[in-house]
Amino acid sequence: MTDRIFNFSAGPATLPVSVLEQAQSEMLNYRGAGMSVMEMSHRSKAFESIIQHAEADLRSLLSIPENYKVLFLQGGASLQFTMVPMNLQSKGKSADYILTGSWGQGAFKEAKKLGSVREAATTAVSNFNRLPSPDEIKLDSGAAYVHFTSNETIFGVEFDEEPATGDVPLVCDMSSDFISRPVAVSKYGLIYAGAQKNAGPAGATIVIVRDDLLESVPDNLPAMLDYRNLAKNGSMYNTPPCYAIYICGLVFKWLIDDVGGLEKMHALNKEKARILYDAIDSSDGYYRGHAEKDCRSLMNVTFRLPSEELENKFIKEATAAGLDGLKGHRSVGGLRASIYNAFPKTGVEKLVEFMNEFQKNSG
Amino acid sequence: MTDRIFNFSAGPATLPVSVLEQAQSEMLNYRGAGMSVMEMSHRSKAFESIIQHAEADLRSLLSIPENYKVLFLQGGASLQFTMVPMNLQSKGKSADYILTGSWGQGAFKEAKKLGSVREAATTAVSNFNRLPSPDEIKLDSGAAYVHFTSNETIFGVEFDEEPATGDVPLVCDMSSDFISRPVAVSKYGLIYAGAQKNAGPAGATIVIVRDDLLESVPDNLPAMLDYRNLAKNGSMYNTPPCYAIYICGLVFKWLIDDVGGLEKMHALNKEKARILYDAIDSSDGYYRGHAEKDCRSLMNVTFRLPSEELENKFIKEATAAGLDGLKGHRSVGGLRASIYNAFPKTGVEKLVEFMNEFQKNSG
Repeated sequence: MTDRIFNFSAGPATLPVSVLEQAQSEMLNYRGAGMSVMEMSHRSKAFESIIQHAEADLRSLLSIPENYKVLFLQGGASLQFTMVPMNLQSKGKSADYILTGSWGQGAFKEAKKLGSVREAATTAVSNFNRLPSPDEIKLDSGAAYVHFTSNETIFGVEFDEEPATGDVPLVCDMSSDFISRPVAVSKYGLIYAGAQKNAGPAGATIVIVRDDLLESVPDNLPAMLDYRNLAKNGSMYNTPPCYAIYICGLVFKWLIDDVGGLEKMHALNKEKARILYDAIDSSDGYYRGHAEKDCRSLMNVTFRLPSEELENKFIKEATAAGLDGLKGHRSVGGLRASIYNAFPKTGVEKLVEFMNEFQKNSG
Repeated sequence: MTDRIFNFSAGPATLPVSVLEQAQSEMLNYRGAGMSVMEMSHRSKAFESIIQHAEADLRSLLSIPENYKVLFLQGGASLQFTMVPMNLQSKGKSADYILTGSWGQGAFKEAKKLGSVREAATTAVSNFNRLPSPDEIKLDSGAAYVHFTSNETIFGVEFDEEPATGDVPLVCDMSSDFISRPVAVSKYGLIYAGAQKNAGPAGATIVIVRDDLLESVPDNLPAMLDYRNLAKNGSMYNTPPCYAIYICGLVFKWLIDDVGGLEKMHALNKEKARILYDAIDSSDGYYRGHAEKDCRSLMNVTFRLPSEELENKFIKEATAAGLDGLKGHRSVGGLRASIYNAFPKTGVEKLVEFMNEFQKNSG
């Protein structure tokens, strides 16, 4: 615990200290099993219990209806960019993509390789600093699905509510705000999320998919890319990423027992983001947010300083002060503070103090 | 360290205790970084150093020539069953598969979905208790590649030497004997291995591929399934399975510093296997090995008892005595003792003692 720093990394990202401490204490002998979770057969009773509890706790956190399967997979959201169209575009239908940042663009690019796709909306022209309004989204009512990215980490824009898609199944890359707030899962056909922002370490990918969508998965897909096959085998068609799943399970438990559920997590995330955006908005324009106010992300706060020179100075001095990982992505420049679930409020307060001090000294 | 048991699991499998202890000590703060490896940006200097050292140590262990790329991927060997034909069968050529067990059959089944494949040899008729002789292997000299499985975990048969394939690139699923012995990498076009036997935890897959094979990878493959793209990005096209790679790196270091390299590891593995096979062979037929003597695996020792009833009694009593994971796979029945690199010789000796005692008491 000593000498831990405040880690604003966009992902992999900060995990709850209590989770790390528990993993540490169980490293050589998991609860009397006589071995580490890393050494355990995935067919053992001990590991079956780990994955079943992880799934049950996730179902409880998100109130996932019974007609949805929960899968723990590999390959990150980037492999889902391929698996989604491969599995869901069975009938030669087109698919709609709402583009609000780099991740949506990435998903669109991969889907294009496999079938017919449409750009239903894009905010590229303003460098993804906002979300499209409902009337800017041009949907194809015959589409196989509509894909969107609930939070774009690079630009720091986040949907507050799902786009309305009528009967067309909604597919969401929820990687960077997954389990940061309650979600009405029943509005979605499929949700996917790389674990490494809010849910656990890199190496596990969570997919939540409605049963009826599995029925039209094409035959003869590669086994490892076939949702139906993976669901049928309870995420254990082959050896799953056991240790990453174990850590996700500990994080879910932490959210339930320590935080008190997703309503409380959401309130805390809103509070952390408010503190930071308030500091930006009350800086007399010294700090300028990239995203428009009504689209601001609770997870990734993107902002600029008066000059690149000052930005570099800020990053250097912040790092020295134990505020790490604040450099923004090159597509936006400036700074990005990622403040996922496990990022402590004290770290946000420390950053705001630092920002105020930095502005004063540069004046 | 207290209360650790002997874990004969076929994989995930035993890791070196010193590796687990080091991971434990670095769990909350990796060498002064102020965070866990699980929390680190994969673009950080600290993680770049981890993956670069892991690759360098693996190159040193296996003397990997410079014209080979080393990739750390996800999805296990099972995803390689798809990626190999997708990437290497570019010219509409057929591919040859040598089938010596369930894993080879699995690879063959997936390749069939994507293109033309041939069964160059199979030992299915004798329930995979042996390897084909060189003249039983019927190769197509125009094949895109020849695929074989160096060690079949379920049946316990292992190639001592690579099949000769002339100019046709040799592709090997080396999952279960990877880095258990020296290998002449230059004889191979591509080697792949799930980490969870000898190299680390489940969730990392290692691919070693000769540069010239990357040149003919078809255009427009899904980015996450495209060796050329993954190689170009140094295994970081997207977030890699950072923690699993870190543990693999610690295991490579252990092999170099503590074991003294793969020649020494091989000698120790031969010694462990000899002790166990000797016990089987000197039991007057009470214990019967599944694999023919000249094909016996150094990694997975498969054997039967006089009856299923005795086998069940053996497994139950062995488990109670701290000898875990000995139940054989249902395709062979009986027992399987997996004794990978990190499995200690004392555990093998304890099993042999137990076997002798069990036989005496049942007489």
